[in-house]
Amino acid sequence: MTDTAVLPSPVIINGDRLWSSLMEIAKIGAIPGDGSCRLSLTDEDKTARDLFAQWCREAGLDLYVDPYGNMFATRQGLDKEAPHILIGSHLDTQPHGGRFDGVLGVLAGLEVLRSLNDHDVKTPRPITVVNWTNEEGVRFKPGLTGSAGFVSGLNNGSVKGDGVDFFRELERIGYAGAHPANINVGAYYELHIEQGPVLERAGAQIGIVEGIQGVRWYEVLFEGQDAHAGTTPFMDRKDAFMAAAATAMKLRLEALNLDASLRFTTGRVEVSPNSTNTIPGHTKLVLDVRHGDVRILDNFEETISNVVATLPPKEGVQGSVKRLMDVPPAIFCASMQKRLFDSAESLGIATIRLPSGAMHDASSIAPHYPTAMVFVQSRGGISHNPAEWSDPEHIANACAVLANAVLTHSIDVDGLTGTK
Amino acid sequence: MTDTAVLPSPVIINGDRLWSSLMEIAKIGAIPGDGSCRLSLTDEDKTARDLFAQWCREAGLDLYVDPYGNMFATRQGLDKEAPHILIGSHLDTQPHGGRFDGVLGVLAGLEVLRSLNDHDVKTPRPITVVNWTNEEGVRFKPGLTGSAGFVSGLNNGSVKGDGVDFFRELERIGYAGAHPANINVGAYYELHIEQGPVLERAGAQIGIVEGIQGVRWYEVLFEGQDAHAGTTPFMDRKDAFMAAAATAMKLRLEALNLDASLRFTTGRVEVSPNSTNTIPGHTKLVLDVRHGDVRILDNFEETISNVVATLPPKEGVQGSVKRLMDVPPAIFCASMQKRLFDSAESLGIATIRLPSGAMHDASSIAPHYPTAMVFVQSRGGISHNPAEWSDPEHIANACAVLANAVLTHSIDVDGLTGTK
Repeated sequence: MTDTAVLPSPVIINGDRLWSSLMEIAKIGAIPGDGSCRLSLTDEDKTARDLFAQWCREAGLDLYVDPYGNMFATRQGLDKEAPHILIGSHLDTQPHGGRFDGVLGVLAGLEVLRSLNDHDVKTPRPITVVNWTNEEGVRFKPGLTGSAGFVSGLNNGSVKGDGVDFFRELERIGYAGAHPANINVGAYYELHIEQGPVLERAGAQIGIVEGIQGVRWYEVLFEGQDAHAGTTPFMDRKDAFMAAAATAMKLRLEALNLDASLRFTTGRVEVSPNSTNTIPGHTKLVLDVRHGDVRILDNFEETISNVVATLPPKEGVQGSVKRLMDVPPAIFCASMQKRLFDSAESLGIATIRLPSGAMHDASSIAPHYPTAMVFVQSRGGISHNPAEWSDPEHIANACAVLANAVLTHSIDVDGLTGTK
Repeated sequence: MTDTAVLPSPVIINGDRLWSSLMEIAKIGAIPGDGSCRLSLTDEDKTARDLFAQWCREAGLDLYVDPYGNMFATRQGLDKEAPHILIGSHLDTQPHGGRFDGVLGVLAGLEVLRSLNDHDVKTPRPITVVNWTNEEGVRFKPGLTGSAGFVSGLNNGSVKGDGVDFFRELERIGYAGAHPANINVGAYYELHIEQGPVLERAGAQIGIVEGIQGVRWYEVLFEGQDAHAGTTPFMDRKDAFMAAAATAMKLRLEALNLDASLRFTTGRVEVSPNSTNTIPGHTKLVLDVRHGDVRILDNFEETISNVVATLPPKEGVQGSVKRLMDVPPAIFCASMQKRLFDSAESLGIATIRLPSGAMHDASSIAPHYPTAMVFVQSRGGISHNPAEWSDPEHIANACAVLANAVLTHSIDVDGLTGTK
């Protein structure tokens, strides 16, 4: 593109600086057990944003805030008109959150740009680090708010706060931008902790993510009859909880038989009247089902319907199923996955490929722009918990893999303009 | 005992009067669907008590209120020193209660005494109708408060109100007596609706109750690990709900195999964190187990411990069991059961024998005094519900069976002084 680009290979990132930035942000909203609580658009979120903005300015980046509170910090390229490479994630946390989920992706992006500064690397294309608003979806639902707003817009009605208004809170903390970001996106990278045990079990520090599983939620209602626990013989019972328990167990078995990577969870159970001496007349299960292949999801949806429609008559209970949510799988850009793989290989870091079971801001971006993700090992697979932990060395290596992939991408015309 | 006793056989009770008294009381605290809500020691309870007291005075009965608010209305016998025959139950109801549970037993007792008045029957022994306080245990726990206080006393600490004090509420509604009742109890009869489907299925209007099942409550805790529904493969899950569901189903099967009349109920289920996309790390089941035979209860307790101690290792969940409550079975007086049976036979009414699955004030009295109960058929077995219903003819017949048993008992020296 231009003969002034300087491309050391590999680029050296500063793992200590990245780690100390992570620890610095973690102090904002610190909670016992080394965790952080920075719910979106609270004062803690504002303080973290302010610190991130200060670091961006110190790194000479151009900061822009869009109407959804997304923060874009751009290191200009030699060709200012070229599509940007975005690197991002989110600074907000769960109420009882850790120090890595989200924050790592934002600060790793910043570290890539700081390292390019250190080595005085000039990239052909602009590279932009982004902090997406309200990924976690705790104070405002649904989550992934900022990334969804960036690609598709949002209106007042589409974000629900529990007694607080999203746009008013954005104004209050001073992060309501006037105009949508005028950023031409060439590609989106996100580094995130795995939040699962797969990398640890495989002995891999780093994973290259193939895509994000589709998620469907189902409400299953069981209607029997409340009755006295002491006076009602077995044959007269219409025990909604027992029918629900049998259904949950049967569906778990069906899920295992259908596909080993199908995730089936009964996370929510409501029993009514929930009184020790009353046979429950009503029980609600909410099921979470995930897989990367829509055909498997469709197949299992049929299984759920069949199992619930054919409860054993002796239970005396009627079941019904309603789908509450359906997020299709996201498939990541193959050439960007290859770029990450090659980057790891060039650094001598072993990787594995894996799907993401959790949703990320990349879920919003992937249907619109070429997208890829890097996972770093999570100790014990624990997240959404102060005990969340990733090894500093693993983090530094993951950031290096990201940096080198971004760097090769920044000079590759096909990579910049290619679509998935 | 005395030659002035007049004993018609059988005594004729006035079923219409009993029915209209039931309907009159039901108006106090009436709720939609023909139900009643008269929680113990509320203004509604006071109004019902006042009406009952007025009826007792109109029937020439001597009224006494003890320190637990129990109301005793005595029709004196020819021998004032002889032990009383008590007939009773309770006027309080469940929040969403019907018109028969409890009230029937009190007003049937009153009807027996009114009928004796009608026919100018003089009984050798005094007969006392009693309204026990707070049988239901809704506003104050535990229930059976008045009957328990009568036999064993109560102190301030033994009755827990939810923000209200039992003894202060008794004072407030004017039903705190100064001294324990000085009543020499010879026998206790209670007429109650069945609250179950057994009589209806058997085509019997009336049941003679053999005793009250013992009740044990168990808290079973399952401890696994909260984990992300999307990122955690099956083999890494420690799903406390699935372990709980499997345990509930296994215990139901064990209960059926052990004894067909064992009642096993999982009435209370608490899943934590109860979030759709989190594998539940904790689940609590509260079990209600009932049987008339302590040996069966002991046997099943061992089964519960064994099943919970040997959860399949693949579940990755630890279980523990704690017994929360143990009320031993009550066995009713055989000669009083026979008296009720003979009374029904002399009236040409078919009966069956059955155990009570529910607790009643008779549970408090039976360990101390000869006790028996009569059940009347409940339509659909429904109770604790405005839809509770017993046929007026069945009720009149049950009251007649009670009246004639009481009458023969009142002249039987052995019956008056015998112990179980």
